[in-house]
Amino acid sequence: MTTEPEAPETPESPGAPADGFHVFDTTLRDGAQREGISLTVADKLAIARHLDDFGVGFIEGGWPGAVPRDTEFFRRARDEIDFRHARLVAFGATRRAGVRVEDDPQVLALLESGAPVVTLVAKAHDRHVELALRTTLAENLAMVRDTVAFLREHGRRVFVDCEHFFDGHRADAAYAKQVVAAAHEAGADVVVLCDTNGGMLPGQVRETVAEVLAATGARLGMHAQDDSGCAVANTLAAVDGGATHVQCTANGYGERVGNANLFPVVAALELKYGMRVLPAGRLAEMTRISHAVAEVVNIAPATHQPYVGVSAFAHKAGLHASAIKVDPDLYQHIDPELVGNRLRMLVSDMAGRASIELKGKDLGLDLGDDRELLSRVVERVKENEHRGLTYEAADASFELLLREELQLRESGRARRYFRTESWRAIVEDRPDGTHANEATVKLWAKGERIVVTAEGKGPVHALDRALRVALERIYPQLADFELVDYKVRILEGTHGTESTTRVLITTGDGRGEWDTVGVADNVIAASWQALDDAYAYGLLRAGVVPQE
Amino acid sequence: MTTEPEAPETPESPGAPADGFHVFDTTLRDGAQREGISLTVADKLAIARHLDDFGVGFIEGGWPGAVPRDTEFFRRARDEIDFRHARLVAFGATRRAGVRVEDDPQVLALLESGAPVVTLVAKAHDRHVELALRTTLAENLAMVRDTVAFLREHGRRVFVDCEHFFDGHRADAAYAKQVVAAAHEAGADVVVLCDTNGGMLPGQVRETVAEVLAATGARLGMHAQDDSGCAVANTLAAVDGGATHVQCTANGYGERVGNANLFPVVAALELKYGMRVLPAGRLAEMTRISHAVAEVVNIAPATHQPYVGVSAFAHKAGLHASAIKVDPDLYQHIDPELVGNRLRMLVSDMAGRASIELKGKDLGLDLGDDRELLSRVVERVKENEHRGLTYEAADASFELLLREELQLRESGRARRYFRTESWRAIVEDRPDGTHANEATVKLWAKGERIVVTAEGKGPVHALDRALRVALERIYPQLADFELVDYKVRILEGTHGTESTTRVLITTGDGRGEWDTVGVADNVIAASWQALDDAYAYGLLRAGVVPQE
Repeated sequence: MTTEPEAPETPESPGAPADGFHVFDTTLRDGAQREGISLTVADKLAIARHLDDFGVGFIEGGWPGAVPRDTEFFRRARDEIDFRHARLVAFGATRRAGVRVEDDPQVLALLESGAPVVTLVAKAHDRHVELALRTTLAENLAMVRDTVAFLREHGRRVFVDCEHFFDGHRADAAYAKQVVAAAHEAGADVVVLCDTNGGMLPGQVRETVAEVLAATGARLGMHAQDDSGCAVANTLAAVDGGATHVQCTANGYGERVGNANLFPVVAALELKYGMRVLPAGRLAEMTRISHAVAEVVNIAPATHQPYVGVSAFAHKAGLHASAIKVDPDLYQHIDPELVGNRLRMLVSDMAGRASIELKGKDLGLDLGDDRELLSRVVERVKENEHRGLTYEAADASFELLLREELQLRESGRARRYFRTESWRAIVEDRPDGTHANEATVKLWAKGERIVVTAEGKGPVHALDRALRVALERIYPQLADFELVDYKVRILEGTHGTESTTRVLITTGDGRGEWDTVGVADNVIAASWQALDDAYAYGLLRAGVVPQE
Repeated sequence: MTTEPEAPETPESPGAPADGFHVFDTTLRDGAQREGISLTVADKLAIARHLDDFGVGFIEGGWPGAVPRDTEFFRRARDEIDFRHARLVAFGATRRAGVRVEDDPQVLALLESGAPVVTLVAKAHDRHVELALRTTLAENLAMVRDTVAFLREHGRRVFVDCEHFFDGHRADAAYAKQVVAAAHEAGADVVVLCDTNGGMLPGQVRETVAEVLAATGARLGMHAQDDSGCAVANTLAAVDGGATHVQCTANGYGERVGNANLFPVVAALELKYGMRVLPAGRLAEMTRISHAVAEVVNIAPATHQPYVGVSAFAHKAGLHASAIKVDPDLYQHIDPELVGNRLRMLVSDMAGRASIELKGKDLGLDLGDDRELLSRVVERVKENEHRGLTYEAADASFELLLREELQLRESGRARRYFRTESWRAIVEDRPDGTHANEATVKLWAKGERIVVTAEGKGPVHALDRALRVALERIYPQLADFELVDYKVRILEGTHGTESTTRVLITTGDGRGEWDTVGVADNVIAASWQALDDAYAYGLLRAGVVPQE
């Protein structure tokens, strides 16, 4: 047989919850099946670090031997990551039908991965055994037994995923249970019941898990898909039924609709079941970890995700806003700080003066009881939101508006850092296939007229560079500013390339980040507005006094 | 008292399910609380038509009297919509403390709205009565009784939403039940238990609903929020506990995380509970209705939404792709056509030759067993997806690639409809605040060199117009093409305005739509690629033979 690394050690991680309950993450294996996700090895290593940081007990890294990237991932993870909480898990299948387990290269690759834990996928649905696997029910049981026993002999901890378990149990309950029993008796630590098609509902899951537990005595786990919109509830229902191992993915990534979302499952177990399933103190990192993983997979964090979405504790209803002034706990199911999130008051055209006043306080601006000022701000917000601006995601643009109104109240005049006279952007596609992007900016700052032309990778980049060069001599603070994120949204889907465009820009200065917004009938002009606000707000943060 | 319209008739709608189970939609009221949604009256009318078309029994339109837009909505809905299935519901609050119901203008506005049904929100949590409402527990009960009785006397059907019911039941079960009993005894048809903070889990909901039903005998409904990620499951759990009225919103829109999503709730009741809750034949319209509502509220349809997302029945795993060739039912919990969706095979860098072959068949192109061709296509797909192209959402661009490879195999040369020599776009912001957008295109078609300059609302619009003018004389079929949607995605969030940009364009010709993709280091160049593919594919659809 092929070279096999030393049977790895599996010490209890310091600070980890006891082995009595497993939080098992499969973002890197099953989560990567989500439409639109394509992970490099570097991405997988980065996500593994985030998940370990969060404190999950097990990280399923992929299918070594079957997917070259995954083989590479296990090799590099061994060298490059010093896991603090998690154990790495290799995923693979039971031996092929009619082949001795020690001759199956796919099984040997699992050993070679060096992972201390292996999850084996096994068929538990009679029809799948016959149609997809094309073997007999008896041979399928032997495949489970042989592969589990072989890996156990080589010092691996083994979990068995029973694919299509719930559909299989409905079709032939006795056979489905035989598969569980075969895995359990051969030495699998956990037998995981998978709702592979995601069609189950919580009541059915709870009953089935309890029944299988009573019949087999095996330690059971749950793997839920979200096709019915019940994956989180199904996972919790399995725990109600006696499961002590839950398989989830960060942000619910996964094939089709997705998998059970790790974050609401863990939060419910810790905060609503009163269980301790993460190392102490890690739950408060949940929002950050969720967003960090989204960043790596390059999918914008779902704004309305339970617990961790930026909207999860955001209130805009006038009714609620007044009540929240009385007691925030009246309108939230948990304290958002427990999961690292925060309560937000939204500024929107549904907001009244009360919301604007609260928001002002949030920003450290005391608007007092100036009803006239508040009404003027509400009016401008409504008018601008009608044009397509959205202050909900652009606090910095909102604060600039608020400060402008305060200045107008105090001195009858709003001072700015610079005033734009005009700008121009040119994009040229040359016959040789290369592009030229050039922008010219004409502006006034501190009484001086400045004209700058710059090139860039694209027209917005060229504009950004021209603006930066124009301002940097006057405001050296700009050197620290960096554009962190740039988002474009087309507002009127029915008018094609004629649509109104909204641009959101996130800028940082090494100490923090701020968000600005622009709206126009074309992407370049909208970007310009957001850039203008971004630089102005950065200078405000830097303590510069506007003079223009 | 003020003028009151005739007490409206409430005939049983033809073809609607019996009154025994209520599908109650509150997209227009509670759904509109979602961060980022701002509905005009026209939007509300359009959504109401879609919901009626879908076949819900009740549409809650808003709070007449409290929100001017909602007052206007009820006035216009009465004149402009001829509801086929739904009844319109006005939302309001019980009378104010210490005020006679007939003197409360807010209650009178509910009558004036002309809606045949009224939902009254009532407090059911002792602490909310005292802290938010600032009245006594006894007066709160009187407020419920008086308002229900008053509206019943005026011929309205009344539902009562018990706000914060579940938290209230936990705090003071006896009082929470007294509120239910008061509403029931005063003549409310349904008493709705609201999980206003969204913190409940299904087991708790089922038990509480069953307990309240046994104690009060009132007909019960459920209103769930999704803060625990369990709103759909909680709604179904309430039905398990005996509720016969479910309050949901289209696509789960709603404050914070959102409300129970109408679509998976209805689909589960019809397909998994075997209940008939919609008029016959309407479930198959679900995907279309979901996307149409998303279009009106101007939020891109959630791609991974259960049942109706474009990814809900999309498969990319190699493992699954092979099994699906055997039997699609092995990998889906329902037949997607039941909800108007469809199975999709995804082309991605995880796809092997089997997926490409299936996809080719999907497109009506027989690639036979040409392994060499298939491998070349897999190679190009991987390479292009590495650059950031995504064929998953751009079937037309993928088909153009496939056809190019087929032409290369047949004749060693790929023919095109036109070849671009170069293009240029200029955006200019003038001192007076107006913008000029100008584009020049130089291309070859049918052996002719064409140079066109055009103006537009933005640089992409100008390019689109220049390209269209350049080609239209040669290919009059272009006159039918219309750009339907234009989406921009920044791929590398960490590089600000320097990022790689992906553009997806949807084009229609009155008979169908097609999607194309472009990727470049700037938005203009990426748009150009997607436009180029869009026009080429449209000409292919029109049966034009490429000659260039």
